[in-house]
Amino acid sequence: MAVNYHDVLIAHERIKPHIHKTPILTNRHINEMLESQLFFKCENFQISGSFKARGAHNAIFSMPEEMVRKGVVTHSSGNHAAAVAIAASKKGVPAYVVMPSNSPAPKKAAVSGYGAYITECEPTLVARESEAAKIIEDTGATLLHPYDNDLVIAGQGTAAKELIEEVGSLDFVTCPVGGGGLLGGTAISVKQLLPNAKLIAAEPLGADDAKQSFESGKILPCKDPKTIADGLRSTVGKRNYDLMQRYVDDVMTVREDSIVRAMKLIWQYMKVIIEPSSAVPLAMLIEHGLTSVKGKKVGIILTGGNVDLDKLPWL
Amino acid sequence: MAVNYHDVLIAHERIKPHIHKTPILTNRHINEMLESQLFFKCENFQISGSFKARGAHNAIFSMPEEMVRKGVVTHSSGNHAAAVAIAASKKGVPAYVVMPSNSPAPKKAAVSGYGAYITECEPTLVARESEAAKIIEDTGATLLHPYDNDLVIAGQGTAAKELIEEVGSLDFVTCPVGGGGLLGGTAISVKQLLPNAKLIAAEPLGADDAKQSFESGKILPCKDPKTIADGLRSTVGKRNYDLMQRYVDDVMTVREDSIVRAMKLIWQYMKVIIEPSSAVPLAMLIEHGLTSVKGKKVGIILTGGNVDLDKLPWL
Repeated sequence: MAVNYHDVLIAHERIKPHIHKTPILTNRHINEMLESQLFFKCENFQISGSFKARGAHNAIFSMPEEMVRKGVVTHSSGNHAAAVAIAASKKGVPAYVVMPSNSPAPKKAAVSGYGAYITECEPTLVARESEAAKIIEDTGATLLHPYDNDLVIAGQGTAAKELIEEVGSLDFVTCPVGGGGLLGGTAISVKQLLPNAKLIAAEPLGADDAKQSFESGKILPCKDPKTIADGLRSTVGKRNYDLMQRYVDDVMTVREDSIVRAMKLIWQYMKVIIEPSSAVPLAMLIEHGLTSVKGKKVGIILTGGNVDLDKLPWL
Repeated sequence: MAVNYHDVLIAHERIKPHIHKTPILTNRHINEMLESQLFFKCENFQISGSFKARGAHNAIFSMPEEMVRKGVVTHSSGNHAAAVAIAASKKGVPAYVVMPSNSPAPKKAAVSGYGAYITECEPTLVARESEAAKIIEDTGATLLHPYDNDLVIAGQGTAAKELIEEVGSLDFVTCPVGGGGLLGGTAISVKQLLPNAKLIAAEPLGADDAKQSFESGKILPCKDPKTIADGLRSTVGKRNYDLMQRYVDDVMTVREDSIVRAMKLIWQYMKVIIEPSSAVPLAMLIEHGLTSVKGKKVGIILTGGNVDLDKLPWL
């Protein structure tokens, strides 16, 4: 049976002791600019610096003891790796993270700071997968997929659940889509709790596989993604695609300059640090100037704040 | 009679409808680094982007109607100007802000965005004061001093009041000192609510007039200040000096490189944008490696988040 709201409820009870209930911020200037009421769910303040902590904790804390004690493996180089590292450390089991040799030093430092074992490899998917397979053979650890996994999807759905429970009614909810873990979980929560709200996925034009898949009716791979939104370069997963087709009202793309502008706007006026991927939904609202959201209440998930402060996209 | 805690109580009731009760953040990484429990009061999220909104609202909302309706004047180019502009606009009275012609464009845009009348002048104190005097003569508006004013001091004291009421007991409280409005108000609240807590003022070495005044027993002017902490270049005011001598336990200075490092640390790990002045207390704790704070609870006021995102001090 497909992952559903019951799984989100169980996930929330399971992960509550381990994650932050993140704050929801509003901003007068941005509201006036868009003539809407925007509610920003700040997952940049989440443990590990992104919403990925929700799915990682849910997956790791639901594994049977004899399985989890051998550890977990991931070959993500981004937020999922940090989330797995911290969730495993809380569970007291080893985390093995395969990272491409060209990963930024701050990301390596963060992952090893959470106590994970890092294995470096060539920066190709083949090298990453074969290195991960070797670790699994050696240790018996379990591979944790970053998004095409029911427990991960259910965990990510808890962010929208908290948002809706705190704000009450919303007319629109929007979040970015990369592999679709957050989108899938958000879709389940939104359609359960606010059946009349519209759910819009936002995606960089330079990595628009979700939009193409959404419109063509089959999964089309994300080939040669070109975007600064480094969290959104993956191809939508199978489970995530099914949830998107079933629940999402629209998928809209944005230009790179819109992403940078929206990111800087949030830094400037809201005084919070978000990574480029998090700016994509606001960029979508601004670039498309949607008249349908005027006067309406819009929930936006700010996905993470893990950014290299030495390389800002507007400088 | 000198400004006292009764004035802070009245100020809080007066300004509550107009300001944010800002959140208090904690951070595991920074706590572990300092082996202390730090509580950051986030005035960077305050209306106008800094704690200055508290004092400006208190002063403007306590003026007699026949006085306030002619408006208020300030010749600050920084956070006080923005705070006065926004408080005046809420009160529905004109704000006249004299700004040096070399003020950064984003600051001018913020002040005029709040509906204030901006007059540009030569970038000298003499030109600012004479321009302000001219406006007062023409309009009958009232000059609002940024810190050497009882109502402003009482307003600023509400930040520490909120911090202590929310966290409960604290062993230390620390905030930066420039003109001393925040320090004076904080001193009143801390000594009333936590008589056993130590209050430490933190100041850039390149603008160390408060420390010199504190130690010499008389106000020494801040000559040729050299610091990126642009909010802390003023000379301590008379009322503020008196409160400092009476209540403050110590004044400690920090190097510029410590300020930049602490600022980046807060951006990186707490995901919040603070201006350089706000980083001075954490810089002080790190640079001096105070053993007395180990294992203790420390309250820190993050004063503001108005920073030029195109010019970051570590780039």
